Amino acid sequence: MARFLSRPIAISLGDPAGIGPEVVAKCWDGRAVNNLPPFAAIGDPRAIAHVWDGPIELVDDPQEAEAVFDYALPLVQITAAEDDLPGHPSVAGAHCSLDSLEIAVGLARSGSAAAVVTGPVSKEQLYSIGFAHPGQTEFVAERCGVSQGNVAMMLAGPTLRTVPVTTHIPLAEVPAHLSPALIEARGRTTLRGLQRNFGIAEPTLAISGINPHSGEGGLLGREEIEIIEPAIAALRAEGWRVTGPHPADTMFHASARARYDAALCMYHDQALIPLKALHFEDGVNVTLGLPIIRTAPDHGTAFDIAGQDLADPRPMASAIQMAALCAANRELVE
Amino acid sequence: MARFLSRPIAISLGDPAGIGPEVVAKCWDGRAVNNLPPFAAIGDPRAIAHVWDGPIELVDDPQEAEAVFDYALPLVQITAAEDDLPGHPSVAGAHCSLDSLEIAVGLARSGSAAAVVTGPVSKEQLYSIGFAHPGQTEFVAERCGVSQGNVAMMLAGPTLRTVPVTTHIPLAEVPAHLSPALIEARGRTTLRGLQRNFGIAEPTLAISGINPHSGEGGLLGREEIEIIEPAIAALRAEGWRVTGPHPADTMFHASARARYDAALCMYHDQALIPLKALHFEDGVNVTLGLPIIRTAPDHGTAFDIAGQDLADPRPMASAIQMAALCAANRELVE
Repeated sequence: MARFLSRPIAISLGDPAGIGPEVVAKCWDGRAVNNLPPFAAIGDPRAIAHVWDGPIELVDDPQEAEAVFDYALPLVQITAAEDDLPGHPSVAGAHCSLDSLEIAVGLARSGSAAAVVTGPVSKEQLYSIGFAHPGQTEFVAERCGVSQGNVAMMLAGPTLRTVPVTTHIPLAEVPAHLSPALIEARGRTTLRGLQRNFGIAEPTLAISGINPHSGEGGLLGREEIEIIEPAIAALRAEGWRVTGPHPADTMFHASARARYDAALCMYHDQALIPLKALHFEDGVNVTLGLPIIRTAPDHGTAFDIAGQDLADPRPMASAIQMAALCAANRELVE
Repeated sequence: MARFLSRPIAISLGDPAGIGPEVVAKCWDGRAVNNLPPFAAIGDPRAIAHVWDGPIELVDDPQEAEAVFDYALPLVQITAAEDDLPGHPSVAGAHCSLDSLEIAVGLARSGSAAAVVTGPVSKEQLYSIGFAHPGQTEFVAERCGVSQGNVAMMLAGPTLRTVPVTTHIPLAEVPAHLSPALIEARGRTTLRGLQRNFGIAEPTLAISGINPHSGEGGLLGREEIEIIEPAIAALRAEGWRVTGPHPADTMFHASARARYDAALCMYHDQALIPLKALHFEDGVNVTLGLPIIRTAPDHGTAFDIAGQDLADPRPMASAIQMAALCAANRELVE
């Protein structure tokens, strides 16, 4: 399927001192066996040269990538102010990672790229240069003119897709953050994303409870009755197929997973524990609610192993495959 | 291994109107293929006769079970005041399920049985007859003279064992319930249980965080720093092998699971989501901290499917196998 995309995929390398350059280069090595579509890397070629001795060809636009992809890794060059060594991040590298991200998103918005895959950045480094977003997702949303409330972070693996309603907040604050309006918004974004990115015409969304046994009728907490059930009723009234609230511990075995297209979860670990237990190597972060396709491998910069040829390229390969799938579905739908 | 147990296992049938009688009878049918050790059922034989037409032989003591086990299901008779039909629970059935449980525990305490496996009861029905415990576990603990604070509920599958520090309380109350003393107590019970029931001389316990990314150094919550890390330090000071606090979402993939013998989790779903995602059919509830061995299948009475030959006996078979394994290990240790 991948070769049928009309445009290549743009991949930002992330922090030049992290494992991003290594895993992208390894994906080019494995492009045939993994059936990867043409892609162009966006970043500093020196970061790749430190960890890989394959051929790189500079291109000005991802659209040139297809012509060179068979014999070299196409790269849109961003030059960092310093040449960081793997495992030694710097302020210059943080600037380079942000420039790469911004250009990758711009290429997708302009139509030069079919999708964006983002390599791992260091939030610590980005904060040190004044980056004011919680993560890359929020930055991409802003650049696309979409409010943060209308995007959703989906974690997608071969047999499970989950979306957390709340993300990076302390667990103790989760109950107070939940509201019917928030759950409905995330639910709608997820359902529309299943239609647009995954080509599922009438998607089914399973919504979790938050308490043990989904509150056992109010005995173990009332959020299900007061917050989650009203949100489910509102989504159903709009015509969506929505089930729940489901006890979270019995939602994720194989026969339960077969009953829905995505699970909407109330907090970070409720969504990520089952996803990573089942799909640690092939789970992909997909941002829903954007005008563009954006995916990312669900791992960090791993500075501690950068430059040692230890990084596993499978999560990045899965993210590229997922981006291609979503882009193909969206071209069909629109 | 199973045949080497010196005594049979006692299995309480649970609520006579639930699926307990059916799954125990089906386990006897599959005793050879599943390599199950001799066991005696404790309950009303009419409850079995409603759902199974195999041979039952009444025994007075589980120790007689071995002689009859090859040709009939041995049963220590409890007669309910009414003969409930499957799927139609009653007060009389609740009394019968409680009597079965009490006698099964007594048989294990007296030495007539090597272990107790408990069939599913209805808490609603038990509460209606004045049962004052949160569940069977707490009742068994009391009958064994062990304080509830010193027992722990382990969920054990072939590749993962988890123990929740808190269990059936609303998620919003979990952070306030946590204390170093509570985590240490559950940790010690778990570590000793790994030694006594599982025969692991120097067990490793992985302790989870509670917040996303384990709090990210305090940015996303301070429970890890203020509560969990002191508990880990205290357990290590006693000489135990303890790691953590680990981000809960990256604790449960295959290579992470290989690094510990059990995971101590902060709340119900944190322990049960990964266990049931990976081991829905073969996860077993094991009560640690008791003078006896007690296991249970991790499912309920399922009144809605009782009497329809739909109940899956695999969880009960796993619970029997686990009881036999733990009993054999304990006989070796003690």
